[in-house]
Amino acid sequence: MARQASIAVDMDGVLADVYAQFQKMHLEETGESIPEESMVGVPEHVAFPLIEKHVRTAGFFRTASVMPAAVSVLKELNQNYEVYIVSAAMEYPNSLIEKYEWLGMHFPFITWKQIILCGSKYPIHTDIMIDDHFKNLDVFQGKRSFLYTQPHNKLADPGKHFRVNGWEDLAQFLLT
Amino acid sequence: MARQASIAVDMDGVLADVYAQFQKMHLEETGESIPEESMVGVPEHVAFPLIEKHVRTAGFFRTASVMPAAVSVLKELNQNYEVYIVSAAMEYPNSLIEKYEWLGMHFPFITWKQIILCGSKYPIHTDIMIDDHFKNLDVFQGKRSFLYTQPHNKLADPGKHFRVNGWEDLAQFLLT
Repeated sequence: MARQASIAVDMDGVLADVYAQFQKMHLEETGESIPEESMVGVPEHVAFPLIEKHVRTAGFFRTASVMPAAVSVLKELNQNYEVYIVSAAMEYPNSLIEKYEWLGMHFPFITWKQIILCGSKYPIHTDIMIDDHFKNLDVFQGKRSFLYTQPHNKLADPGKHFRVNGWEDLAQFLLT
Repeated sequence: MARQASIAVDMDGVLADVYAQFQKMHLEETGESIPEESMVGVPEHVAFPLIEKHVRTAGFFRTASVMPAAVSVLKELNQNYEVYIVSAAMEYPNSLIEKYEWLGMHFPFITWKQIILCGSKYPIHTDIMIDDHFKNLDVFQGKRSFLYTQPHNKLADPGKHFRVNGWEDLAQFLLT
């Protein structure tokens, strides 16, 4: 049997709604909401001035919301592709166990063999990559790369990558 | 400038002396020493009947000894190659933070960008791999693979891999 095509699936901003988490923590700490339009087209650390503190707060990753339709689409992808969850988690070592547990909680069909927590994604080679950051997509050496829309990349030309606006789009591209 | 060749360096049984750790914990728990010769040519879980318990014990990875000459040779490799520490840590999630901290303690010149904690090593592509397990070496798709001698692999034919008996051997192959 031919080997299935492999996919590297990002966590933050693709499986996990980190923007919602940053907004919630900013509101809790300052009493102020960050308007949606101020996040568009600017890097995350500009949109969220407290990001470096909040991302290091215990529970940040553990309590993040799952992106709409991510569970059902990833479950089906997992039956048709060799799926790896690849997250650049090493900058925030407190996130390691939280990310592992979060995946177990929301995506129990993903086994420990499919999880990769790394610093750089450069040495990870798969056929397909799904990510919201150009820094990961632009050095990717596989066949198809999907730019998952998040406010920071919303105005950018996707270039050689396919832009997807959510997991339903990914289902259209990869499951039909 | 041409990109440096990349190396995937295993942790357990290559950077960290896990055999010494298993022997020590077996002795502490049972009062009995495991003779060196009984470990040779048998899988680790046969040599160490309590391995599944001990590897899950808090502190197992944090207090492991560093292999002789590993620090000085890896430091020099790090100046001449693109070094990644690649450890199949995901089966034991309590090991994630311990492995991260152990690397920082003994190999402070290795940055978070160079660390990969994974389940399977299959999607990790580098030019060179150093590992003590055939299961990782045999699916490696790079150019040169080194079998680091440990009791479990001591009697095996290295096949297409180069056998090295320690970090001085690696220095000979990779730094001269």
